[in-house]
Amino acid sequence: MPLTHLECARCGRRHEAGEVLHLCVDCNSPLLARYDLQRAAREMRPGHLALREPTLWRYREVLPVDDPDARISLGEGMTPLLALPRLGESLGLHRVSVKEEGGNPTGSFKARGLSVAVSMAKALGATDVCLPSAGNAGSALAAYAARGGLRAHVFVPKDINPLFLMETAAFGAEVVTVDGLITDAGKVCAARAKEQGWYDCATLKEPYRLEGKKTLGYELAEQLGWRLPDAILYPTGGGTGLLGMWKAFEELEAMGFIPAGARPRLYAVQPEGCAPIVKAFTEGRDDAPMWEGATTLAHGLRVPKAIGDFMMLRALRASHGAGVTVSEAELIQGVKDAARHEGLFFSPEGGACVAALRKLKGSGHIAADDHVVVFDTGTGYKYFHNMEPAWNLA
Amino acid sequence: MPLTHLECARCGRRHEAGEVLHLCVDCNSPLLARYDLQRAAREMRPGHLALREPTLWRYREVLPVDDPDARISLGEGMTPLLALPRLGESLGLHRVSVKEEGGNPTGSFKARGLSVAVSMAKALGATDVCLPSAGNAGSALAAYAARGGLRAHVFVPKDINPLFLMETAAFGAEVVTVDGLITDAGKVCAARAKEQGWYDCATLKEPYRLEGKKTLGYELAEQLGWRLPDAILYPTGGGTGLLGMWKAFEELEAMGFIPAGARPRLYAVQPEGCAPIVKAFTEGRDDAPMWEGATTLAHGLRVPKAIGDFMMLRALRASHGAGVTVSEAELIQGVKDAARHEGLFFSPEGGACVAALRKLKGSGHIAADDHVVVFDTGTGYKYFHNMEPAWNLA
Repeated sequence: MPLTHLECARCGRRHEAGEVLHLCVDCNSPLLARYDLQRAAREMRPGHLALREPTLWRYREVLPVDDPDARISLGEGMTPLLALPRLGESLGLHRVSVKEEGGNPTGSFKARGLSVAVSMAKALGATDVCLPSAGNAGSALAAYAARGGLRAHVFVPKDINPLFLMETAAFGAEVVTVDGLITDAGKVCAARAKEQGWYDCATLKEPYRLEGKKTLGYELAEQLGWRLPDAILYPTGGGTGLLGMWKAFEELEAMGFIPAGARPRLYAVQPEGCAPIVKAFTEGRDDAPMWEGATTLAHGLRVPKAIGDFMMLRALRASHGAGVTVSEAELIQGVKDAARHEGLFFSPEGGACVAALRKLKGSGHIAADDHVVVFDTGTGYKYFHNMEPAWNLA
Repeated sequence: MPLTHLECARCGRRHEAGEVLHLCVDCNSPLLARYDLQRAAREMRPGHLALREPTLWRYREVLPVDDPDARISLGEGMTPLLALPRLGESLGLHRVSVKEEGGNPTGSFKARGLSVAVSMAKALGATDVCLPSAGNAGSALAAYAARGGLRAHVFVPKDINPLFLMETAAFGAEVVTVDGLITDAGKVCAARAKEQGWYDCATLKEPYRLEGKKTLGYELAEQLGWRLPDAILYPTGGGTGLLGMWKAFEELEAMGFIPAGARPRLYAVQPEGCAPIVKAFTEGRDDAPMWEGATTLAHGLRVPKAIGDFMMLRALRASHGAGVTVSEAELIQGVKDAARHEGLFFSPEGGACVAALRKLKGSGHIAADDHVVVFDTGTGYKYFHNMEPAWNLA
């Protein structure tokens, strides 16, 4: 069993794995999975990895699911890392790449976390899983639950794109629409989960989604020959992608796969209409208060309050990164720039990273010779309803 | 240079590669790329292949583009081959898998052919590429042209899903809407191409799209450990996927990677509203006349007349396969079945294969123990506009 125990991200308290656990029993903070990294380092040598299957399960020594038969998989992970020479040139940058997550099952990076979390939920005996979602997490939960023979319950703001409602229901999930934002949906979900005894997969409220997300960092390192880029731009909602990568880099350092002190600067990208992490970063705070009146067409970034706020702020600072906001017009322009220059149809979240890159180059945070990786967290095709009006106006 | 020459699929006439060629100069039939397969067999040994990049370019010895720098790539190919145990069980079948093509760049299998064809067009000196399309081929052409710095011109029926129009234009292509079907768009496209000197990428009117498509067959063989399935169900429009796989199996036999006589039975799946190949197969014809009044929500299958008709009919018969039609209600049900049982959101074309599988099991063409592979040729997310009404009615 590569997983040894769970550890509180705030107070460090050790918890035993092997049963359903959500938050720290002492301080109610997120739990982190811990492994025997020395053993993992021996078994995951690059020469061995290269021969493994092209999914995130190739990193099995640092994932919580031990038995291959217990994996609930739809072929997630090992997405392309693509150089963007034309887009880079248009921004005065020599080396820009994108980790293109749109080809994942259900069309987004949410597949990573939910493949691992639903697998663990089932292994721990759950029959029902649930979460609040702005769209993509809900459909991914529903897909993996269908694949694994579990029941799923998804709580969404009632104004989300109807495609997500249809898709999630098609996977056989119960879909509950809630008046409000994802935080409101989260409250309803948590209450129902407690009442019914469901396994709640809400962001960072159980330890295993993060483990799936961290494979973004492992893939990035492997695809770059175990040399990390100078800077990462990540569209930040609940923040598990950012936190997952940071955890991956920490583990890779501990395993000796990357040298100490070689981690990239992390930049959290948020829309002007919902930027709690950027605001808290700028104000020097250790936590990020609720953002009032959150609005953006990048629905995945409409997260007014994140339970992992303190962890994100810690990672941004430790990495010597920063936070950056972009307007709705700028993120749409980012989608257009990627399409026109590189033939890639980004999500609004990916477009936000392109827009942020322009700003960070302008402000001097990113230099012409920096190797920068932006993340497109999902396919743009699921956002046609959202983007069409803005697109046609331009 | 692994490519040695081009050969007419009908009369066998040899043509030299290295210049722009479309159809046979004698009989106006499709040209097939031919390679030094003995050399390829030596260099592509399975132990070597396993270490190569997870894209279709891993099969470089049997692809026409020699120089890696001449590849125009967005990370296409090496899509998952997923077992479908729950769906299979619901149909009384023990071993059903899907080749899930929705994760490709631009969300469909069209990326394969157009990555290779646009790369070759550019290598042969073209600055402009064009084709007629029902949607996905056009957006893939536009994406690869953008990626390679070429201009693209796409001719589409004016009733196609608006998402495709927006997407194709976003990639910077000229989009021309034509009153009629893809065959009508093809006529306008051919005339403009001739007039302007563009490289016409219309299905089988140049030899290299087929080469990209054939990688479906190579991947299938490699993913199955060089043992092919008993039967393949393929949603059939222009037919390059079917023909490409058949060509791949022929090459794999010649290279000794698969034994002679071990090729799967091929089943062409078409909707009742446009089934020229199935009709011609059933009637014992060697060609398929124009289908009048073609209509189906599976727009990729709305091809009333295919230039490769004689080749498809030959392959279906040589493989001891058949043709099968499905109704619109059946193909929608197929989409629903895959979603509910397996957590996969198929295109209508993929749903047609699920529906056809049920029929072929019922008619005894497919036995309970047959290993069957169905193809989902694109993501269902791009078809939300088409499917929504049908979905909600059910």
